[in-house]
Amino acid sequence: MIRPDWIAVDWGTTHLRAWAMGPGGTVLDEAMSDDGMGGLQPSQFEAALLALVGPWLGPQGVDVVACGMVGSRQGWVEARYAAVPCAPVGEALTPVPTRDPRLTVRIIPGLKQDRPADVMRGEETQIAGALSLHPGFDGVIVLPGTHSKWAQVSAGEVVSFRSFLTGELFGLLSDHSVLRHSMGGDGWDAGAFAEAVQESLSRPEALAARLFAIRAEGLLNGLPPAAARARLSGLLIGAELAAAKPYWLGMPVALLGADGLADAYAAALAAQGVTAMRIEAGAATRAGLAAAHARMKETT
Amino acid sequence: MIRPDWIAVDWGTTHLRAWAMGPGGTVLDEAMSDDGMGGLQPSQFEAALLALVGPWLGPQGVDVVACGMVGSRQGWVEARYAAVPCAPVGEALTPVPTRDPRLTVRIIPGLKQDRPADVMRGEETQIAGALSLHPGFDGVIVLPGTHSKWAQVSAGEVVSFRSFLTGELFGLLSDHSVLRHSMGGDGWDAGAFAEAVQESLSRPEALAARLFAIRAEGLLNGLPPAAARARLSGLLIGAELAAAKPYWLGMPVALLGADGLADAYAAALAAQGVTAMRIEAGAATRAGLAAAHARMKETT
Repeated sequence: MIRPDWIAVDWGTTHLRAWAMGPGGTVLDEAMSDDGMGGLQPSQFEAALLALVGPWLGPQGVDVVACGMVGSRQGWVEARYAAVPCAPVGEALTPVPTRDPRLTVRIIPGLKQDRPADVMRGEETQIAGALSLHPGFDGVIVLPGTHSKWAQVSAGEVVSFRSFLTGELFGLLSDHSVLRHSMGGDGWDAGAFAEAVQESLSRPEALAARLFAIRAEGLLNGLPPAAARARLSGLLIGAELAAAKPYWLGMPVALLGADGLADAYAAALAAQGVTAMRIEAGAATRAGLAAAHARMKETT
Repeated sequence: MIRPDWIAVDWGTTHLRAWAMGPGGTVLDEAMSDDGMGGLQPSQFEAALLALVGPWLGPQGVDVVACGMVGSRQGWVEARYAAVPCAPVGEALTPVPTRDPRLTVRIIPGLKQDRPADVMRGEETQIAGALSLHPGFDGVIVLPGTHSKWAQVSAGEVVSFRSFLTGELFGLLSDHSVLRHSMGGDGWDAGAFAEAVQESLSRPEALAARLFAIRAEGLLNGLPPAAARARLSGLLIGAELAAAKPYWLGMPVALLGADGLADAYAAALAAQGVTAMRIEAGAATRAGLAAAHARMKETT
């Protein structure tokens, strides 16, 4: 029987992930479901949470700290953005009323930036976690994903950040565009990726033409699917690196994520002479939620 | 009762369009159906054509000249690409065997380019038509669309061309990405379009960040849908203009199409000091099919 000190929750658009946290940041248990915020009405969040963490609940009350899209306007309760520059989880957490008296739920606010207009939800917690795992880190934290983020961090604060639609573009183009005909199967061509990154860095404006050329290369020259997929990824990540140059040039860079996507970013950065420190994304999320929970205990 | 001299056919992925052609290029009748190449097996093309043009057929045989995706590998019969530089419809048409003895069907081959790899199908006919309507035109012909084309034309030949995924990106992003939340309704903000074109021209590498910023502007500043849609279009068309600069800079430019999309391209080019000659796309298609038919009569 698991009785956590508190419960850490990462609640995104498509998934709900929870950890039963023990003394000193230990993880007693974890659970996951497909009850992402995207498929829930506000009235359904509490039931979705109870369905997942119910087995961990005893007669005592328990704190729940959640991050991610659960705090968006379409989520459970809106947690208003904090404006940068600020600490990644510096603002007060947003309390969520629950019917079940055993739950004390709080949501971590996202961050916003006025000019250029930008927002994040969930990544601020991972950034807080990265700083908690690597105290004193000053530089740039990269969070690859559907909407990749580059955050400039100094003296424990997020100074500025920028989001890129790179991951969503990759998904739409490989699954729904004319390029899908060239992408079948698995496999990865690291050489094609590196070449495409370099092409985009040197002529980023040619992106839309180079994208169509993947299809033409498939039709005329039988470009293999593994090369087509790596080329698409390389063109998009190369364009992101070109735009994010002021972020990474001459700066210490930390890369969040241990999966294939983060590997691709690491390879692309390495080709530019940048050795990124790698931080595991799940560990950063939990460390950030723990930092927010510690802060919540201090202030209540 | 309509008895055409010959039948002109524009057979794309989603639509089938036919014109009953009379003496001297007159149009006696026209017909359209949703029997695009994308929904047909090779064995179904003849029936789809007969369903549309059957009322025009008498006891005599009739020539049918078709252009577009009907000639692709997944079409009725593959019409192999001609390699540029070449006349837009210079190659022999590809004959299509039919069961109905009244039909003599020929397909116009598309064009291919080896380096950079590129292909077109259908646009070569519109380019031939543009040259037929404006004999001696030397310069650049722009064909906005799902896969926009820029073709350099000289002495009656297509010298080189480049395709851009611009239209398909616009469709995917406005209908299927996170930006769809910011795009509802109709309307067009010409000022937002012009500003976005200029932004993309001056910093084309920032595209993926500027795309996400449309969403952030919607969340933080209530960017109106008409401005969001115009901004998305302007960012993508601006990036295309940036990449196609060697095509349009200091060159006579002809723009095919009289619809809103061509208007947007004309406005974007005008802001760069380029006055594009406008050519109606349907007229160009019919003129190109007529040029191909005339050639077919000469050579048979």
